[in-house]
Amino acid sequence: MRLETFSDAVIAIAITLLILEIRVPHIEDASPVELWEELRALWPNYLGFLISFITLGVMWANHCVIFRYIARTNHVFTLINLFLLLCIAFIPFPTALMADYLGHPAQEVGLIVYSGTFVITAVAFNLVWIYASNGNRLLDPAADPKAVSSISRRYLIGPPAYLLAFILAFFSATASLVVLIALTIAYVIPYPGR
Amino acid sequence: MRLETFSDAVIAIAITLLILEIRVPHIEDASPVELWEELRALWPNYLGFLISFITLGVMWANHCVIFRYIARTNHVFTLINLFLLLCIAFIPFPTALMADYLGHPAQEVGLIVYSGTFVITAVAFNLVWIYASNGNRLLDPAADPKAVSSISRRYLIGPPAYLLAFILAFFSATASLVVLIALTIAYVIPYPGR
Amino acid sequence: MRLETFSDAVIAIAITLLILEIRVPHIEDASPVELWEELRALWPNYLGFLISFITLGVMWANHCVIFRYIARTNHVFTLINLFLLLCIAFIPFPTALMADYLGHPAQEVGLIVYSGTFVITAVAFNLVWIYASNGNRLLDPAADPKAVSSISRRYLIGPPAYLLAFILAFFSATASLVVLIALTIAYVIPYPGR
Amino acid sequence: MRLETFSDAVIAIAITLLILEIRVPHIEDASPVELWEELRALWPNYLGFLISFITLGVMWANHCVIFRYIARTNHVFTLINLFLLLCIAFIPFPTALMADYLGHPAQEVGLIVYSGTFVITAVAFNLVWIYASNGNRLLDPAADPKAVSSISRRYLIGPPAYLLAFILAFFSATASLVVLIALTIAYVIPYPGR
Repeated sequence: MRLETFSDAVIAIAITLLILEIRVPHIEDASPVELWEELRALWPNYLGFLISFITLGVMWANHCVIFRYIARTNHVFTLINLFLLLCIAFIPFPTALMADYLGHPAQEVGLIVYSGTFVITAVAFNLVWIYASNGNRLLDPAADPKAVSSISRRYLIGPPAYLLAFILAFFSATASLVVLIALTIAYVIPYPGR
Repeated sequence: MRLETFSDAVIAIAITLLILEIRVPHIEDASPVELWEELRALWPNYLGFLISFITLGVMWANHCVIFRYIARTNHVFTLINLFLLLCIAFIPFPTALMADYLGHPAQEVGLIVYSGTFVITAVAFNLVWIYASNGNRLLDPAADPKAVSSISRRYLIGPPAYLLAFILAFFSATASLVVLIALTIAYVIPYPGR
Repeated sequence: MRLETFSDAVIAIAITLLILEIRVPHIEDASPVELWEELRALWPNYLGFLISFITLGVMWANHCVIFRYIARTNHVFTLINLFLLLCIAFIPFPTALMADYLGHPAQEVGLIVYSGTFVITAVAFNLVWIYASNGNRLLDPAADPKAVSSISRRYLIGPPAYLLAFILAFFSATASLVVLIALTIAYVIPYPGR
Repeated sequence: MRLETFSDAVIAIAITLLILEIRVPHIEDASPVELWEELRALWPNYLGFLISFITLGVMWANHCVIFRYIARTNHVFTLINLFLLLCIAFIPFPTALMADYLGHPAQEVGLIVYSGTFVITAVAFNLVWIYASNGNRLLDPAADPKAVSSISRRYLIGPPAYLLAFILAFFSATASLVVLIALTIAYVIPYPGR
């Protein structure tokens, strides 16, 4: 299905473009110590790269999971999936914004935009699945209803979790970041039955 | 068919590169209010990202539609499709030009180039379909002639619509932009029978 | 065959990255006339984009042609194809170099490097085909020997043609550019039997 | 398998983005001799491009080899493969760092980070294979055990070889670079039985 190849390509590009936002520091005749210092100061950029890469990577893995159940496509579904890809393609911008202002007076702005983008992306992901699975609209008739509803429940955790990080960002950039990091770690912990 | 994979890849890359044209504003020790202000000032860039992403995304969806009817390929067809991909790969440049000059004295230039690129791209898209469908040259013999001529009619609306935005740009950047936004919205409104 | 998908992806990315080398001119409060002037001054960049895009696009089409005859692959063949992809991935750099110095005192340098890169790329393309077709090493046993040797003859024109542009670049940047443009035009002229 | 397409795409993008780190030198009205001089001074960038492109290209070829034996996938395996892709997507950054500081006082820093990244990437590659092949967890039951253990042995050379380059980098940037170049050359020498 070209919808899958195209989604794979957009996610792969967005995930790989993230590295372009980490720029090599340029200091004339830096000593090794100075360069190490500059590289250490880029930690918010490494962190943003890690969070965004892992979040999008796991979202790609979940996209594969739901498409194992989806058997058909239609124009509305293509548009909803395009909206998800639009959110994903946008992510390198808030990632760079968050990283560039972390530790600066305006760091809350970066975290509001960054976590807010994740809220919308998680909603978009759920829209893709809900549209396809609602009344088995586009699912393979042989799809196990229990597996389908278990998937639905699992993905519904995303939007409120990111909403929490979004709301926290207005009060404390650190608290918001901690939630985002915790979510990222939760994604990569294998649990039984997965 | 490698023609489809290659087209998917070029469109996916062009669509995702658009984000590189939105750059994080850099202000030393900006206050949150100042950074919000700077982010708000980037609205032409968000708008350009949205218009170009949706236009190319819907063009990709239409590319999928016509390739469901196309069964064969030849060297001339490959070249015409390459011409379409050339237009698509070019779009990040006029998008950035339009966005960077919107609200500045030279904004009409940006809109002339931006809408002009869409005119040529829409013509290229029609050339791909007309070459393939004319006398059923490359179509699946089983293709429904009614569906084929309905597709032909629908896509022929593109070039004159963009031509209108192009002509308006010489008189009013705003009017041209309104037409481009209206076209983008029209693309994503689902209508019965689609 | 993953070799084909991977080649498609690298060529699609190289061809689309070319646009990043055309940068939007930034002039404070430019009048429309001044911006048009600046955009006109970028013509070497548009020309470089066109030549490189069409050359790589046609090379991709030819890559598809030869892989219709290739039935097997091995490690050496993979490495030779990687060498071709390395040349292709390199092309955005000489394209930008040529475009940025055209019309400046050092323009010959740009054309020497640009046409030189095409010489090596054309040689790499021929190596891919010669390694595969020599003694039918990797070809489909059913491949028509006449078609195979006709392809071999056709692609052998590439290296000496680019070598001519390369040698001319040492004497006249214009003459070298004219040869490159002529070659690009020759690629897109359909001729009978193709 | 979408895991393969997605990996192909990420590797293809990372490998092609490398060229964006080689920037055209801009000197006002440079004479040909001056421009040649500037281009010659970019040799660490060409070298970094070559080493990273060939290393990732050969890693892609090896990824194809091991996936010929892998018949199934699961969530943990997807995450391990994502970790490998994360390392690969990161490589343009240390490549640029190494190239930009080679010949400068802080060149050891560049080589420590560059070779260190390759150590982690080689470990990630081995994790992918070990997880899949251990107890034939994800392998095709028909996979030849001798071929499987020969592959395991061959890839285990990677981490200690890069570790040597990493340790040497603390004492001599040149020695570390020589090891990296030697490894790159070793990758492209065909040997009997491959």
